[in-house]
Amino acid sequence: MADIKLSEAIADLLSRQGVHHVFGIIGSANAHLFDAIYRHPDLSLICLHHEQACVMAAHGYYMQSGTLAAVLVTAGAGTTNLLTGVVGAWADSVPVLIICGQEATKQFKGNNLARMIGIQGVYTEAIYGTCTKSVITCQQSEQAFQEVAKALVLSKADRPGPCIVDIPIDLQAAKLDSQRIKQIVAEVMQVPQAVVKGLSQESLDSLVSTLRRAEAPLLWLGNGLRRLDGATLQRLVQDLGIPYLTSWTATDLLDPIKKLNAGHAGTYGGRAGNLILQSSDVLVTFGTRLAIPQKGYVDAELARRAEVFVVDCDPVELDKLGPRFHNKYQADAPTVLQQLHKALAEGPGLKIGPWIEHLSKARQTLPLVEQCHNSKEWVDSYAFMAQLGEAASSSTSFVTDMGTALISGFQVLEPWGGQRLFTSQGLGEMGYGLPGAIGAWFADPSREVICLNCDGGLMMNLQDLHSVISHEIPMKIVIFNNDGYLMIKHTQNAIVGGRRAGTDAGSGLTCPNYGPLVKAFGFSYQTLHKEDDAKQVIGELLAQAGPTVLEVFMAPDQLLVPKLSVSITDKGKLASPPLEDLSPLIPMEQLRSLLLVPVHASSMALNREVAEAKGDAIY
Amino acid sequence: MADIKLSEAIADLLSRQGVHHVFGIIGSANAHLFDAIYRHPDLSLICLHHEQACVMAAHGYYMQSGTLAAVLVTAGAGTTNLLTGVVGAWADSVPVLIICGQEATKQFKGNNLARMIGIQGVYTEAIYGTCTKSVITCQQSEQAFQEVAKALVLSKADRPGPCIVDIPIDLQAAKLDSQRIKQIVAEVMQVPQAVVKGLSQESLDSLVSTLRRAEAPLLWLGNGLRRLDGATLQRLVQDLGIPYLTSWTATDLLDPIKKLNAGHAGTYGGRAGNLILQSSDVLVTFGTRLAIPQKGYVDAELARRAEVFVVDCDPVELDKLGPRFHNKYQADAPTVLQQLHKALAEGPGLKIGPWIEHLSKARQTLPLVEQCHNSKEWVDSYAFMAQLGEAASSSTSFVTDMGTALISGFQVLEPWGGQRLFTSQGLGEMGYGLPGAIGAWFADPSREVICLNCDGGLMMNLQDLHSVISHEIPMKIVIFNNDGYLMIKHTQNAIVGGRRAGTDAGSGLTCPNYGPLVKAFGFSYQTLHKEDDAKQVIGELLAQAGPTVLEVFMAPDQLLVPKLSVSITDKGKLASPPLEDLSPLIPMEQLRSLLLVPVHASSMALNREVAEAKGDAIY
Repeated sequence: MADIKLSEAIADLLSRQGVHHVFGIIGSANAHLFDAIYRHPDLSLICLHHEQACVMAAHGYYMQSGTLAAVLVTAGAGTTNLLTGVVGAWADSVPVLIICGQEATKQFKGNNLARMIGIQGVYTEAIYGTCTKSVITCQQSEQAFQEVAKALVLSKADRPGPCIVDIPIDLQAAKLDSQRIKQIVAEVMQVPQAVVKGLSQESLDSLVSTLRRAEAPLLWLGNGLRRLDGATLQRLVQDLGIPYLTSWTATDLLDPIKKLNAGHAGTYGGRAGNLILQSSDVLVTFGTRLAIPQKGYVDAELARRAEVFVVDCDPVELDKLGPRFHNKYQADAPTVLQQLHKALAEGPGLKIGPWIEHLSKARQTLPLVEQCHNSKEWVDSYAFMAQLGEAASSSTSFVTDMGTALISGFQVLEPWGGQRLFTSQGLGEMGYGLPGAIGAWFADPSREVICLNCDGGLMMNLQDLHSVISHEIPMKIVIFNNDGYLMIKHTQNAIVGGRRAGTDAGSGLTCPNYGPLVKAFGFSYQTLHKEDDAKQVIGELLAQAGPTVLEVFMAPDQLLVPKLSVSITDKGKLASPPLEDLSPLIPMEQLRSLLLVPVHASSMALNREVAEAKGDAIY
Repeated sequence: MADIKLSEAIADLLSRQGVHHVFGIIGSANAHLFDAIYRHPDLSLICLHHEQACVMAAHGYYMQSGTLAAVLVTAGAGTTNLLTGVVGAWADSVPVLIICGQEATKQFKGNNLARMIGIQGVYTEAIYGTCTKSVITCQQSEQAFQEVAKALVLSKADRPGPCIVDIPIDLQAAKLDSQRIKQIVAEVMQVPQAVVKGLSQESLDSLVSTLRRAEAPLLWLGNGLRRLDGATLQRLVQDLGIPYLTSWTATDLLDPIKKLNAGHAGTYGGRAGNLILQSSDVLVTFGTRLAIPQKGYVDAELARRAEVFVVDCDPVELDKLGPRFHNKYQADAPTVLQQLHKALAEGPGLKIGPWIEHLSKARQTLPLVEQCHNSKEWVDSYAFMAQLGEAASSSTSFVTDMGTALISGFQVLEPWGGQRLFTSQGLGEMGYGLPGAIGAWFADPSREVICLNCDGGLMMNLQDLHSVISHEIPMKIVIFNNDGYLMIKHTQNAIVGGRRAGTDAGSGLTCPNYGPLVKAFGFSYQTLHKEDDAKQVIGELLAQAGPTVLEVFMAPDQLLVPKLSVSITDKGKLASPPLEDLSPLIPMEQLRSLLLVPVHASSMALNREVAEAKGDAIY
């Protein structure tokens, strides 16, 4: 008997499958679904002011909680406005269930290539086909229910990602048979949720025996381990006793284990992290896609004495890696970590004491905040981050936007005791910070959320400053004011002789005067102009109870370093050093003492005095 | 000899091909192009604060001037942020040249399906394949130059639309041979710019003889006539002497010719326009895609005694039209109008005096602002529009956002003496108004630009309020405050029993207090609360010299009528009247006297007393 409206059946399904929050914006084409979800007693429907922000909020929600949130938008621009959020979630393997309203089914008869389908219908499947795990425009009401159920599973299976179900308005009001619905759910839930398994015994044996022979083994933990609960991951890594790096996206998956944690590596890596990476003799990566900012541009120079094992569930990511990556396993990273843990526990312990001591030495020798990061006239973002991270409580979540907030945030902050730190790492879209932080707060309102922004990037989702106020979110927002787009100014220094265009107030790009603006939204507002005042102002910021903004004024040309940069040789030529030799260059003696492989010829050729504190890189 | 950098060659090409303005946002992946375009003496590079706004500004720029503007964005989110603007331009046949920075060419080797290409590269061709005239990721520097040249032509040819050229960062700095470049330009410009022609002699004869026999012929002028210059179009229509409707997108293509202009028709049509449409015996459409809001839902009921001729250059649009549309010609609308003008001038004049008188009678009997549009407690948006349109100068351009601004704007305003009125009509994305108006101003800073917004929609591009201030645009912005999303409240009245969800402050959706907010941006600010004060406040608004906002407070449930609505029969059942019978229903006598065909059975069945002023429609 057709006894339940599709929209109500979907609301009920979401709730039963563990969805608590839906971020959305209403329109004519999703009004039935909006009505049903809004009225459902166990679902909260959170209205934001741009659809891109809805997906970014769902992204932040998942990064905070590991729980999927849904997004509900309307046809036309409601659907097109999603794109940046969708690609961000896709890149970061974040599951999101996105339901779009759509024009009535009859408008779709062989008509997908009209410039507009019906009144405001777009060809959703074509646009989103290559940046979602699944996208379908439903043609029948029972199918729509089934697709939502399937998307809830698929979105989280193997490598997670967004799924889009496009539901025409006529179907939303159609009635379904509640018995049949139960059957559909049972059928869908029977399908295996993940298909990628762990390593074969042979591969595992090979990996284990290589590790047992290693003198300087290193694990590189990535976002693919997110599906392990934090406590389990913590225990596994602790027990393994092998030094580890984390990718930026995996930064806060476990509390740092002091003697094993090498931090980050990459073109904006920690110095110690890069030296450890480059000194390793066996490198095993777990669920990290080894993006260029991580592995650098030249594969041959990556961990150049190491045998490399790559564990990733996505064959596309494995295919992209060249011959430098000897052992590529399409396998589930959490399962492999558990297999490895079990296998290594069964034999004698690894004898890597000297290697662990070397790691300690590197970390002690090379502080995260470099000497150049102090400023008399301004506030240096690195110095500020260090103080903020220390002063903030252990239940703080830092959500960053891009540029200065991203780079100095991830180079300096080492979340401790339950602190969290994340952003939209893969796409790196300006504007993520604010809605990401909104999502994080809804995922756990008991935590302190600090959103780290820059004056340029905040503009991209400025409208949702109002949502912080309207939803009474006691968020603290830091705006680093660097007069425009600081990272791009450094790009201009590197590639167009320092000429400015569209990067600062002198070249056609200004940002608003944030003080009056955020006060008009309803925030309290503080400023920080001098490093000397940082401690006090940070204290005041953390003591604020309601939504508040702190604007931090930094040098408009502050260096974002250490960074892998093109540098100058003794002969005055440009040269690209290997990943361990970040700018500003450290003295040769120090480099040599911390690197367990011979110093690279490129490093030998550099003129360390001339190059000092250059800080700019060729793209 | 490779003597010119690709980026500089492109800047030069744009300038030589008549591009004056480029709207853009810089990033690492477009920094060479940004540098070259910013420094070019004949190009203005306008920085906005969201890429969607850049395309919308180019849209408004073209609607104002008929001149193409370019858009320059970076890779990754710079490219994904374009989507809504691109689909809007696509739907409205607006040419835009969009150049995207992209990851270096080497990142594209068989790698398009990785979730992220290089650092921040997305698969541009896949995303934009079905909503642009062309999209290509270039692999070679000479090719990149050629593709930009081709896009400049293709974008404007036949049915215009956006073209995307995606240029990897390594190519941007490559050197080209300036002789070879000249050759490429010459070759590209030789390709015919348009391929669709006028009517064959046979088709023309058939159309002409049908028109000569007609007693009630009607032209429906669409956006496809935009490529005719205004003066020519004016003369052609004047000479033809046949009553005409305009599509909403074509509203301001010519100054209204009083005795011929029937206004608009459609589900939110003018009453007179709909009655004339339904009374016509020959209907000829020129370059209008006959969207549902124009033609209504039931083809059989459209102009039901008329023979219909459709002239459109896009075969996809012709294919979508059913058997009601007898004569479908794939032809260039401007050419056909000229052919028709010539052919009709050669014989005796049409004898349609009574028909023209009938049109005058209909227009005089049925004012654009209905009786219900007066308010004692609030300001009615229809009454306000009428006063504003009359008081504004003839050199005013009205750019609307959606919702109330769109509906009451296009139902009431009849641009006179050079006034302009436009929006993003096809996609109808909230947020268009502001960047569209910014683009219109750059296209002609000598004109007065009035941007008509609502409290809900303005949020979608709120960030670019700052651009109005930073670029010193003396824009006047009207915000109709209707407590949320008024059109969707009416949808909720129609389809979910009036229950609110995410449409007003009582159901989870609030908008900011705009007064303090816009003042913080730097606007002056006025309010209008009562209709009695409208005249004075409008006078004050028009007298303002700098950027200013007027917030107009309207009833949060104000009707947006006349509108084609489901109504109630004598027997208490729901029924859908034909297009001429808009709600609130007019008396039967009046309907009968203004309709030259028999009253439709559905109209006969309606209970006109019960239905009075209902105003809500089933979707």
